[in-house]
Amino acid sequence: MTDTGDAATILPRPDFTATFPGPFPASLHGDHTERQLLGWLEEYPLLPSAEARSVLVNITSHGASRTFPTADPDDLVLFAELLLWLTAFDDVHGEGNAAGAPAILVDGTAELMLVLAGGSPPSLMNPFPAALYSLLARCRARTGPAAYLRLAASLRDTLMALVWEAHHVTEPERVALATYLQMRPHTVFVRTIIAAAEIVLDYELADAQRALAAVRHLENAGANLAGWVNDLASYEREAARGPMQPLSLPTLLRARHGGNLEEAFARASGMCENEAAVARQWIISLASDPSRTLTTHARALEDIVRSFIWHTSHARYQGPKCGREPGPTA
Amino acid sequence: MTDTGDAATILPRPDFTATFPGPFPASLHGDHTERQLLGWLEEYPLLPSAEARSVLVNITSHGASRTFPTADPDDLVLFAELLLWLTAFDDVHGEGNAAGAPAILVDGTAELMLVLAGGSPPSLMNPFPAALYSLLARCRARTGPAAYLRLAASLRDTLMALVWEAHHVTEPERVALATYLQMRPHTVFVRTIIAAAEIVLDYELADAQRALAAVRHLENAGANLAGWVNDLASYEREAARGPMQPLSLPTLLRARHGGNLEEAFARASGMCENEAAVARQWIISLASDPSRTLTTHARALEDIVRSFIWHTSHARYQGPKCGREPGPTA
Repeated sequence: MTDTGDAATILPRPDFTATFPGPFPASLHGDHTERQLLGWLEEYPLLPSAEARSVLVNITSHGASRTFPTADPDDLVLFAELLLWLTAFDDVHGEGNAAGAPAILVDGTAELMLVLAGGSPPSLMNPFPAALYSLLARCRARTGPAAYLRLAASLRDTLMALVWEAHHVTEPERVALATYLQMRPHTVFVRTIIAAAEIVLDYELADAQRALAAVRHLENAGANLAGWVNDLASYEREAARGPMQPLSLPTLLRARHGGNLEEAFARASGMCENEAAVARQWIISLASDPSRTLTTHARALEDIVRSFIWHTSHARYQGPKCGREPGPTA
Repeated sequence: MTDTGDAATILPRPDFTATFPGPFPASLHGDHTERQLLGWLEEYPLLPSAEARSVLVNITSHGASRTFPTADPDDLVLFAELLLWLTAFDDVHGEGNAAGAPAILVDGTAELMLVLAGGSPPSLMNPFPAALYSLLARCRARTGPAAYLRLAASLRDTLMALVWEAHHVTEPERVALATYLQMRPHTVFVRTIIAAAEIVLDYELADAQRALAAVRHLENAGANLAGWVNDLASYEREAARGPMQPLSLPTLLRARHGGNLEEAFARASGMCENEAAVARQWIISLASDPSRTLTTHARALEDIVRSFIWHTSHARYQGPKCGREPGPTA
């Protein structure tokens, strides 16, 4: 075991046995999804090495199968490809690699913005815009205008958040905790996953339902939790890269409240457990609603939260680092 | 007259008398809009000086009244406020001021992204997020989900484009012409204006109509034309700021094709005239369509193009510089 591994055994971690007890349901189509993703990466070579491809495809397919365990095979594959695309973009162009040269990330995201804005089909020479163009066309064909536009909006927000992150990653302690807490859902992709739920599971909240306090509180709690559990899971491997501290919740809690890393982890774990209790409360509340759309949404959020919790116990967090850890699969 | 003014008399300019002959219609509510904008800026002090406020309000109100000459007074005011907000943000945070420190612009746009993403109401301490929050709420109340989401998407695209621009403004000659041509509609706000048309004039294209070649070609021609006429109008004042050349069509045409500034202006003017002919062709084609929605859209695009042409002859371009020149009012 490495030193990092040893350290992981002593830092406090959140306990979700009261709020999100396992085992978590998984789709029967995980293996099918994995094979499809490998084929898709032949068409769009987003990742440089065969090993990176294999690891990311495995994690993404099984993560996606826990995010939407009841999805049809085709929908699950589409969602998994979208998640793989996001994670690969962040691995290749995001935080770590962008730290020294945010202008390159800005150019990359601007190119993707043009695809999102519906411009001409991008050259196949650059696989990220080309793959996004294909993904968006398939999402658009599968749903109504508003659901598609919400998904595309969440992708734009993530791109902007990654650019923001790249401009701060060399001096994380200068980021205000409140700002970080607002940005984090967008860098962990959970808002895109929430937006994708309505497309993948074929339901659509009415505007009045979307505006319900219960829906907003549940989505916010799930979105916060996603980023925080990911931060706790990835902190030590990001810190091992050095020399600066990671732009991550424990870093910002120490900057705000002082104390050592163990205290920051204890504080963050408490935040996670509280937020999990909030999420559970609203899931229970919405799951008994007479509206089938609302119960479906509550169950989708439950599975999304589970997938983020699940991924922190995945081997990717136990072994050597193979990329960044955004999304439920990383 | 200044030297810049003298130079303006000899550089070639596009001739739109065959494609968009004046005079252009204007709303009767221009003066009302101007008074409303002045009151709005009391609530949201976006601009530092009384003089800047007065100039921008005058230009914006009369520009907006030419963009949507048939709009109801309330709709026209809302649109003018949105346009004023965009122009003021660009004046205060954009290109010129962001050149030395794009990270500050990135933070400003990230804050706005959070508002667009529907987070908590922003503090009233910072007028740009607070004003955007109010504008979005009023737009959302006035239209359906998809039209609102399209407007919000165009604003996100503009923010990303302004960030892209800020990262390139110190070395404009390194930007590829093709990239510039794709980004320019987003920095000149014309895509937001096109998205606003459906809200301001209360119509909505069906998806199949939006996908029509005639609609896409007309929108693209109008969007290109907007950026190019603005570049020709603002070039000399931006160049006078020095030391580098402006990130503007003439600069990139010289980098691509060589030649002097006069030749670049002649080439750009030819591009404008060709694009105006394309726009006119599709306006004629759509204006005779049996669908009232399509004829309304064609007329809206005609007025949008007129507003961009109109603003190049405004006093703001003849006198001393009072800010950047994005949008039809600048």
